[in-house]
Amino acid sequence: MKEVFVDGVGMTRFGKFPDRSLTDLMVEAGSAALKDSNRDWVEAVFVGAQNPEEFAQEANIAAAVSDALGLAGVPAYRVETASSSGASVLEAAFYAVASGRYSRVLVVAGEKMTHLPTPRVTRILAEVIERYERNSGASMVALAAMVTQAYAHYAGLNRDRLEKVLCKVAVKNHRNGAMNPYAQFRREITEEQYFNSRTISYPLKLYDCAPITDGAAAVVLTSERTDIKVSGVGHGTDTLAVRHRAYLHHFNAARIAAKQAYRMADRSPEDIDFAELHDAFTCFEVIGAEDLGLFEEGKAWKAVERGEMDIDGRLPVNPSGGLKARGHPVGASGLAQAVEIAWQMRGQVDKNRQVRRNDVAILHSIGGMSNNNVVIIFEKPGTPTGKGFSFDISVADSSKHRRDPIRVGTFGVLDAYTILHVPPEGFPSPLVLGLVSVPSGHRILARALNPVHFKVGERVFVSKEEDTYYFVRPSFLEKTMLSARRSLRKLKVSLKWWMR
Amino acid sequence: MKEVFVDGVGMTRFGKFPDRSLTDLMVEAGSAALKDSNRDWVEAVFVGAQNPEEFAQEANIAAAVSDALGLAGVPAYRVETASSSGASVLEAAFYAVASGRYSRVLVVAGEKMTHLPTPRVTRILAEVIERYERNSGASMVALAAMVTQAYAHYAGLNRDRLEKVLCKVAVKNHRNGAMNPYAQFRREITEEQYFNSRTISYPLKLYDCAPITDGAAAVVLTSERTDIKVSGVGHGTDTLAVRHRAYLHHFNAARIAAKQAYRMADRSPEDIDFAELHDAFTCFEVIGAEDLGLFEEGKAWKAVERGEMDIDGRLPVNPSGGLKARGHPVGASGLAQAVEIAWQMRGQVDKNRQVRRNDVAILHSIGGMSNNNVVIIFEKPGTPTGKGFSFDISVADSSKHRRDPIRVGTFGVLDAYTILHVPPEGFPSPLVLGLVSVPSGHRILARALNPVHFKVGERVFVSKEEDTYYFVRPSFLEKTMLSARRSLRKLKVSLKWWMR
Repeated sequence: MKEVFVDGVGMTRFGKFPDRSLTDLMVEAGSAALKDSNRDWVEAVFVGAQNPEEFAQEANIAAAVSDALGLAGVPAYRVETASSSGASVLEAAFYAVASGRYSRVLVVAGEKMTHLPTPRVTRILAEVIERYERNSGASMVALAAMVTQAYAHYAGLNRDRLEKVLCKVAVKNHRNGAMNPYAQFRREITEEQYFNSRTISYPLKLYDCAPITDGAAAVVLTSERTDIKVSGVGHGTDTLAVRHRAYLHHFNAARIAAKQAYRMADRSPEDIDFAELHDAFTCFEVIGAEDLGLFEEGKAWKAVERGEMDIDGRLPVNPSGGLKARGHPVGASGLAQAVEIAWQMRGQVDKNRQVRRNDVAILHSIGGMSNNNVVIIFEKPGTPTGKGFSFDISVADSSKHRRDPIRVGTFGVLDAYTILHVPPEGFPSPLVLGLVSVPSGHRILARALNPVHFKVGERVFVSKEEDTYYFVRPSFLEKTMLSARRSLRKLKVSLKWWMR
Repeated sequence: MKEVFVDGVGMTRFGKFPDRSLTDLMVEAGSAALKDSNRDWVEAVFVGAQNPEEFAQEANIAAAVSDALGLAGVPAYRVETASSSGASVLEAAFYAVASGRYSRVLVVAGEKMTHLPTPRVTRILAEVIERYERNSGASMVALAAMVTQAYAHYAGLNRDRLEKVLCKVAVKNHRNGAMNPYAQFRREITEEQYFNSRTISYPLKLYDCAPITDGAAAVVLTSERTDIKVSGVGHGTDTLAVRHRAYLHHFNAARIAAKQAYRMADRSPEDIDFAELHDAFTCFEVIGAEDLGLFEEGKAWKAVERGEMDIDGRLPVNPSGGLKARGHPVGASGLAQAVEIAWQMRGQVDKNRQVRRNDVAILHSIGGMSNNNVVIIFEKPGTPTGKGFSFDISVADSSKHRRDPIRVGTFGVLDAYTILHVPPEGFPSPLVLGLVSVPSGHRILARALNPVHFKVGERVFVSKEEDTYYFVRPSFLEKTMLSARRSLRKLKVSLKWWMR
């Protein structure tokens, strides 16, 4: 494989641009990257966007953008992997250069979303969710809230401490964003503001969620040596349905992607100096930092508490402000991470935002509800490899989950739940959703009728009415029956033992 | 670059499948290709689809398909270049294998369209058209009709002879399709049926247009040697707006793509034994055959008349039945061409449909209104190279066209026109559209008020009202003024010459 390097980079400011089309934004970013690069030609254009057809009524976007850039004639490709499109298009362009097919390509990614009403944006974004879960009222934020809760349970965080950790992530990313002239939110937020913001889907508040944004980013990749090398790329998927996954508290797709990227780069997590992670929801930054092996599993929240991810911390995360503060034009975010990494590596950012060690960096971009993830490692050529490839994180085989029809009317364990205050059209507000593991080995997405708080890990009763599963905290009688049944089972086992 | 080979191939029948989802169709095709291949594993999945979001409300399709195939975990990419997505996804997968990144990948492409009402399908398809042209009422068929007319003018075909040529293409492709168990239309049509079919957009009739179709196709690519090698890939774009092109009668994007593919394969058009061309409209087959250098420029229609593109002809074109008879699930068609080529090369088709020489084959897939085209060459390993790379077709630089604001109220030359009988909503039926070249070097898309026939090459008067250009055949007075002005100009030139 040929070596691949980053030459020019560029991006638009992220924010709201009612008067500009998606193509306009992509042309601005693409032109900036071409201007920033060492030569004024490219052999192909690679375009990333999640859904320009529905968001912006622009189709055949790759050819449209190359034409608008004055490059009509050159090959133009669009790559889409939902919200990781900006990273996967960089990866696809990487192969095209690594194969020797092209020696110089322009990669552009963008999205235009703010001109649509929020419910419409939410509905378009929700199309990446598995159909049954979507039809049960599970939006992106609801699923993210349940993942957050599963992580807290796994890491042993109580409600209070979880909120403080998430708050610290939001405050840090806004602090970084305030120093980034390209960020959508260039203002700090206080802990008080965070705690006063309304709950969107328990336990996630407004300030836990990345905003709706317009913007575009661009990178020129070349086989000629420059000051930044793309040394590793990796890509992993997971089951479309969140309930089908091997576990809820981490992202298997991220681990698969990270393992591939570290292997290709012949590096281990210890080599990483700073990271751009996909904080579409604050907790995803914490989970991502663990999935990439940057912090110990179940302990990254402690690093957040100690400020280790701050710009002057041990391993700065999202010096750009992340998706939270820089903004999240879905298809562009992955490539904007690459632009930030290039700027940081070259020392081209405001000195208060500049990370101290900048030889090796990693980006992690999440596609869909974390089922199409991309990890890319960048380094300054000549940086010593250290101990080489190593990645001690376990990777599950999600393709082995059970999906057969399941018995209804059964007890199960509540793995996570959320109280969703802005449910999709046609659902009551608030909508309580839970993921319940049942004895057959399945996990069920079910609804609760009353908006009360549950305890993760508690036993609940699941029943089915028409196409919907419901879960309830068992009544005293049911609890008695449950424990009687359990005693009976134990008795049976004992009898069997005695009679063998 | 590593060599890349085709292992398994497979596809669904093409047709109408109201009870099956796009993912279902892709899983059927993908499983068939995996079953047909020498090993039962792949390292990545590449998915092609033009617009699964709007056609089928399926997003993040790459991850969805890999999950449904039981492959959750492996990297999954979607590549989109409008109606050439099936070919460009094969090309992107080619790079990923050629780079050495993967040694075995599954490529799947599909589209699901027939469940929507035809006007809605037409509207979604029209999103690939440049916005001004779309807003002027130009649909795909209207633009194709004007291209057809420009070709006829260039090739010196009168109306009568053009219709006979197009009829022959349709009849031949239906004859081939009748022998293809995977085709949507497995029945022959007569010349009479062709001539009796209604005119959709003059000069194109119903039987000149590919149908609306559901279906999927799949190919396994590998770096291990098999009996079919992918020896050349090429990709070219053109201006989004048809009126901005260097010429109308051929497709520059096809020529750029063909040149690249021949160069990579170290071959020339003389080496090609048979071809699968993008006959979304019958004339595109004739134009494509010339753009790829398979027949002399401006003369391919004679080859059609002589039956040289028939299965037993000198160079069989579309033995599958083409888009016309096999069907055209837009994102799948390019990959279905590759499947047909593999079957033909292996001698796996019905013996009446089997081409005689099958060592080297070419496919051409058109994206959008022919502004994102892909050409791929396949060959049996060990086939002698012949005289090597040569491609004598001229390629224009479309990026140099003029787009500045233009003077209105001027005379120009009518390059092509069409009478569209099924115009988009909000336009009168029939709608007359014309492309007029004006002296400043621009080409204008204009409307005529009366549905009368014009002559390509005649002088017309163009004026503007609000945002719409209109063209009219000049009245006697205007003609007189026009010729007077011309005489005056000539007089000026003569005077200048005398006074120098």
